Amino acid sequence: MTNTVRAEVITIGDEILFGQITDTNTAWIGTELTNIGVRVVRKTSVGDQQDAILQSLQEAHQRADIIIITGGLGPTKDDITKKTLCTYFGVGMVRNEIALALVTGFFEKRGREMTDLNRGQADLPANATYMQNDWGTAPGMWFEHEGRVYVSLPGVPFEMKHLMSNRILPKLTEHFKTPIIKHKMIRTVGIGESFLAERIEAWEDALPDHIKLAYLPSFGGVKLRLTATGDDNALLDQELAEQVAKVMPLIEKNVYGFDSDEIENVVGKLLVEKNLTLSVAESCTGGYVSAQITKVPGSSAYFWGSVVSYSNSVKISQLGVQPETLDQFGAVSEETIRQMAEGVRKTLGTNVGIATSGIAGPGGGTPEKPVGTIWIACATDQRTVTRLLKLGQYRDQNIQLTTMYVLNMLREELINQ
Amino acid sequence: MTNTVRAEVITIGDEILFGQITDTNTAWIGTELTNIGVRVVRKTSVGDQQDAILQSLQEAHQRADIIIITGGLGPTKDDITKKTLCTYFGVGMVRNEIALALVTGFFEKRGREMTDLNRGQADLPANATYMQNDWGTAPGMWFEHEGRVYVSLPGVPFEMKHLMSNRILPKLTEHFKTPIIKHKMIRTVGIGESFLAERIEAWEDALPDHIKLAYLPSFGGVKLRLTATGDDNALLDQELAEQVAKVMPLIEKNVYGFDSDEIENVVGKLLVEKNLTLSVAESCTGGYVSAQITKVPGSSAYFWGSVVSYSNSVKISQLGVQPETLDQFGAVSEETIRQMAEGVRKTLGTNVGIATSGIAGPGGGTPEKPVGTIWIACATDQRTVTRLLKLGQYRDQNIQLTTMYVLNMLREELINQ
Repeated sequence: MTNTVRAEVITIGDEILFGQITDTNTAWIGTELTNIGVRVVRKTSVGDQQDAILQSLQEAHQRADIIIITGGLGPTKDDITKKTLCTYFGVGMVRNEIALALVTGFFEKRGREMTDLNRGQADLPANATYMQNDWGTAPGMWFEHEGRVYVSLPGVPFEMKHLMSNRILPKLTEHFKTPIIKHKMIRTVGIGESFLAERIEAWEDALPDHIKLAYLPSFGGVKLRLTATGDDNALLDQELAEQVAKVMPLIEKNVYGFDSDEIENVVGKLLVEKNLTLSVAESCTGGYVSAQITKVPGSSAYFWGSVVSYSNSVKISQLGVQPETLDQFGAVSEETIRQMAEGVRKTLGTNVGIATSGIAGPGGGTPEKPVGTIWIACATDQRTVTRLLKLGQYRDQNIQLTTMYVLNMLREELINQ
Repeated sequence: MTNTVRAEVITIGDEILFGQITDTNTAWIGTELTNIGVRVVRKTSVGDQQDAILQSLQEAHQRADIIIITGGLGPTKDDITKKTLCTYFGVGMVRNEIALALVTGFFEKRGREMTDLNRGQADLPANATYMQNDWGTAPGMWFEHEGRVYVSLPGVPFEMKHLMSNRILPKLTEHFKTPIIKHKMIRTVGIGESFLAERIEAWEDALPDHIKLAYLPSFGGVKLRLTATGDDNALLDQELAEQVAKVMPLIEKNVYGFDSDEIENVVGKLLVEKNLTLSVAESCTGGYVSAQITKVPGSSAYFWGSVVSYSNSVKISQLGVQPETLDQFGAVSEETIRQMAEGVRKTLGTNVGIATSGIAGPGGGTPEKPVGTIWIACATDQRTVTRLLKLGQYRDQNIQLTTMYVLNMLREELINQ
C-alpha cells in the first residue's frame, strides 16, 4: 500500500477572516479530495497580505504533498495570489496568450468593454501550467515545485468547482498513487449523539482497525461515517456493506438515508417510486419546506405546489380551514394543522399533503403556546397524522428543524403506502 | 493609539477537513471580533489528532494575542480538545462541580439518563476559567497563558454563539485595550465588480490612508466595505459618513442597503413604512423567495402568503392564470408572469404581488427557452412591471439570483409608491 497523500487548503481573502463571507469552498474541496483518497490535514485562511500568504505556503510545504489555494485572483484584488506565487517560486509574470484570448472572448460575448484590470488576468507566473476556466476570467494554475503540487483557483464557488472537477481532480488522480479510502455514511434523525453511541457501542468496539467510525451531529440528525482504508476496492466495499448490515437492525427506524442522501431527495425518490404527488401548506416555515423540496432537480414530477398561508385569511381562502376552528383553537393547534394538510391535498389535487403551523419566534409566544410550539401533519388518502413539536427559541433553527421533521414524517408515511 | 490586537481561530474536527460539514462558526466569530476592534489574522482547521492541534496552538501563540478554539468537546469526540489543552498547558484535569451540576440538571430537566460520557464533560483543565454554557453540556473555557488569552468553545453553532456573545466578547473587550476600528458596508446589486471599480476609481484613490476600501463580490451583488482605524469614535463615524455621502451619487441606483441590511430586510422595512401588504407567486424559485421574506422576524406584519405553483393546474386554480395563455405562450412567458403577479395580488388580497417563472434547470430547456430563461414581475395598484432574466445553467444559482432580482424589483417599485 502506498503512503498517504496529504493535502492542505489555503483560502486567501480578508473578507473570510473578517467574516464578511462564509467559506463554503473548502468543505467542498475537502469532500472531493477525500473521495480520491487524499487526506486533507489542514485548512488555513489568511488575509490579502503577501507576508501572511508566503508564511502559509511555507508551512504547508512542510506538511503536505498537495497545496490548494483559492481566492485572491479577482481584478480588484490586484491579483495578490499570482504576485505572491511569483515571489514564492522566484519567477516572473508572463502574459498567457490562450488566457488572454479567453478573457477577450468572454467580454466580446457579453458585449462589454474590457478594462486593463481584466486584461491583467491573463498574466501568469512563468512556471504555471494554465488550467482553463470556462466560467470566468480568473485562471486556474498548476505548479510542480520541490516534489509538491500547488494549485491556484479562483474563489468564486462555481468557477472553482468547475476547475476542480474537470481539470484538477483528474490530474491529481493521475499524478499521485493513492491508497484506496472508502466512505459510507449512515444518516439518522430523531436520536441524540450520546444515545446513538450507547446503542451501537458493542458494534463500534468490534470494528476492525482499518475501519473507523465518526459521529457527525448536524441539524436535526446525527450522521455516522464509516471510513475504510486499504488497497482492494471490491473488498473494502464488501466490508463496509457487511458493517452496515450489522448495525442497521439497531438503528433502522432512525435511518433516513445513506451517503449524500438528503431527506428531500429521499422523499422525492419515494414519491416517484410510488407514483404519488405532493402539495404543502406552510405557515411558520414560510416557504422553506417547499424550497427544500424544489432544490431537487426534477421535483416537478411529483411536487405540484404549495400554499404559504402566513395570514389566517389565506388559511381560510386557499386551504379551506374553518374560521370557527381558528377562532376556537387558534392557528397553532392540532385541529388547524389537520385542516391545513387535508385542505392543501384537496385544493391542489395531490395524493399527499403536508403542513406546518407554529410559533417560530422570536415574537408571538404565549404562556400556553411558547415560542417553539409547532404542529406538523401529513394527509394521505388513508389517514392524517399530526405531531406536536416543542422546539427552542431560535427562529432559523425552528424553521429548519420543523422542515426536517415534517419531511421525515412524510418519509415514514410514504414507506407505509 | 494602542497596538492592534490579533486573533486566530482554530476549528477542530476531521468532519471539517473531510468536508462533511461546512464551517459557519469562524465567519461569525470573525465578524464579532472585527466589530470589537480585534484583527483576525488567520483561521486554521485541524483534525481530531493531538499532534496537529498542539502544532496549531504553538503556531498561533507566535502570531496572536487571542486564540479561539472551537470543536472537539463532544462526548463522542472523547473531549480531545480538553485533553490536548492539558498537555499544552502542562496541567491536569479537574472535575468542575458547577459544570457537573449543570450537566446533571440538563439531563434531569429532559428526563434522560446521564451517561459517563456526559459526566466527563464536567472535567476541565486545572487552569481553565469555567464559562457557563446555558444551551448544552459542553463547557466554555477561558485560559490566560504567557500573555495570551485562549478560549475553548463547543462547535455547535448556537452554543458557541451564546457563549461568545454573553461571556467571551464582553470579557475580551474588558481585557484588551483595542484601537477603534469602524466598518461601513455599502451593498450594491446589478453591477459587476470591475465596472463598479472603474466608476468609483477617483473617489477610491482620494481616500485617506486610515480608511481602506474592500470589494466583496457575492451572489447577485458586490459589497463595498469601508474600514476606518483611529482612536476617536465620533470622528471615525463622521469621516465614514462623509465618504459614503461622496460616493453615493456615483452608485445610488445600484445601492439597496448598508451594513447588515439584507434585501429581504430592506423590502420589509419599506412595506412597513408604506403600510403595504405582500404576496408571492413562485414557480421556478419553488418557495425560496417566500423563505427569504419570512426569515425576517415580524414579517407576518406585511407578508400574507404565497402560492408556489409548480404545476400549471395550480397556476390556473390558485392564481387565475388563463389556460389559453399557458397554451399559447407557455408558463415561461411575459404574459404568464404578468397574470401570476396580478393573480396572486388579487387572490390573496394584498397591495403588492411579485412572481417568478422560468427554467431553473438542469432539465426543461429548449432552443427558444434555454435553461436560465426566467421571467419576474411585480404588480401594484398602479402598474405591473415585468423583466426577462437570462441566467446560467446552475439550478441553485438560478433560484438564488432570481430571488435577489425579484426582491430588488420589489424594492424599486416600493420606493416609487
